[in-house]
Amino acid sequence: DHYIIAGYGRLGQRIARDLAAAGRDIVVVDRRDDRAAQLADAGYAYVQDEAEEEATLRAAGLERAAGLVLVLPQDAANVFVALSAREIMDGRDLFIVARTNEQTSINKLLRAGADKVISPLEIGADRIAQTILRPRVDRFMEQVLGVDALDFDLEEVTVGAGSLLDGRSLAAVDFRRHFDAVVVGVLRSATGEWRFNPDAQLALAAGDALIVLATPEQIRTIRAEAAASR
Amino acid sequence: DHYIIAGYGRLGQRIARDLAAAGRDIVVVDRRDDRAAQLADAGYAYVQDEAEEEATLRAAGLERAAGLVLVLPQDAANVFVALSAREIMDGRDLFIVARTNEQTSINKLLRAGADKVISPLEIGADRIAQTILRPRVDRFMEQVLGVDALDFDLEEVTVGAGSLLDGRSLAAVDFRRHFDAVVVGVLRSATGEWRFNPDAQLALAAGDALIVLATPEQIRTIRAEAAASR
Ligand SMILES: [Ca+2]
Ligand SMILES: [Ca+2]
Repeated sequence: DHYIIAGYGRLGQRIARDLAAAGRDIVVVDRRDDRAAQLADAGYAYVQDEAEEEATLRAAGLERAAGLVLVLPQDAANVFVALSAREIMDGRDLFIVARTNEQTSINKLLRAGADKVISPLEIGADRIAQTILRPRVDRFMEQVLGVDALDFDLEEVTVGAGSLLDGRSLAAVDFRRHFDAVVVGVLRSATGEWRFNPDAQLALAAGDALIVLATPEQIRTIRAEAAASR
Repeated sequence: DHYIIAGYGRLGQRIARDLAAAGRDIVVVDRRDDRAAQLADAGYAYVQDEAEEEATLRAAGLERAAGLVLVLPQDAANVFVALSAREIMDGRDLFIVARTNEQTSINKLLRAGADKVISPLEIGADRIAQTILRPRVDRFMEQVLGVDALDFDLEEVTVGAGSLLDGRSLAAVDFRRHFDAVVVGVLRSATGEWRFNPDAQLALAAGDALIVLATPEQIRTIRAEAAASR
């Protein structure tokens, strides 16, 4: 249930740090000597070899992995490794996320087996355009996505069996005032259906995922007081 | 009141397209012949010269511009052009947003006069980590930030003088149900203060900016029916 990060460039380094900070086990793959030295310094598990070789992926424990992060510098390499990984896993579950900088590679990566393709360039262009076209939304998003002192986050909170929210509505627990938080969406576990801007009268059920906008502290309170299984 | 885009690489091209699509006037600066040809094809106003030269910025109409987008390939060039622009403007208003890929350049760009620095690499790393750490939030954000058919957006709506919302609260107009939209934040015009998760009883005033999560169609309805000046 570890995550393999293929490529320890600037993007791979950031992702490794974020996943490790969140307590996930990671194994990094990079062939370069200087990067192997950095990896050893950082104390991360790693395999110093070409990600394009099946033996490297196996050495990184692909068959027991929960996910594969493809952030190699070339899109062609990311496509190739996605195909190898799907072949090795032969239908078994593996989450694959890949970076691209080329609009034209997105479909190739998806067809090669990536579940998700992220283009930092596209996202960056959107954010820059937004600073001009919707400056106040931008300032708002900075609070949501950023790491300011007084910020708040978009987090998922799962309703536990027998918790305060199980079988009750947001209105019934006076959620908005009591927790000073907004539920902007609910993923219903029974149907797999999304409810955006859910009605406060909607009865929740164990397994439902709430998408909550709140400060980290409020999120902790909600998890402990309203969503935890009893 | 036009926007100058310095650099017509992949990021500059995307931003030019977004700003032009939103009806903003743009002038692009790039020294390369192949890019000048692309710019002529796209029908954008442009100056084919080095952005680092003051004469180029003046030729692009900097003194009448509302903003400057710095997406030159080198951070050093972006820093240099930000300094030139601030010197030319000599205290007059100009919004400057710059791209960087180096964490270490952010402060240099801000000190050189950028109002906002965007790092596509950082944002991309955050999004990739999020697909693993908060997968349902990621799917939710895809709807908010993406361009899917059934998507919704975070938009700013300004309360017009004499509009339905001027002097009234969200509760008074039954905002949430009537418009099927969530107000996640309010920027009070009187105080410049942000209210996150505003109380439904809060009396709004002309000039307040609501940050609204809704479909594009609902946003249009809100603008027309609730926020438009009468
Ligand atoms: Ca935050
Ligand atoms: Ca959207």
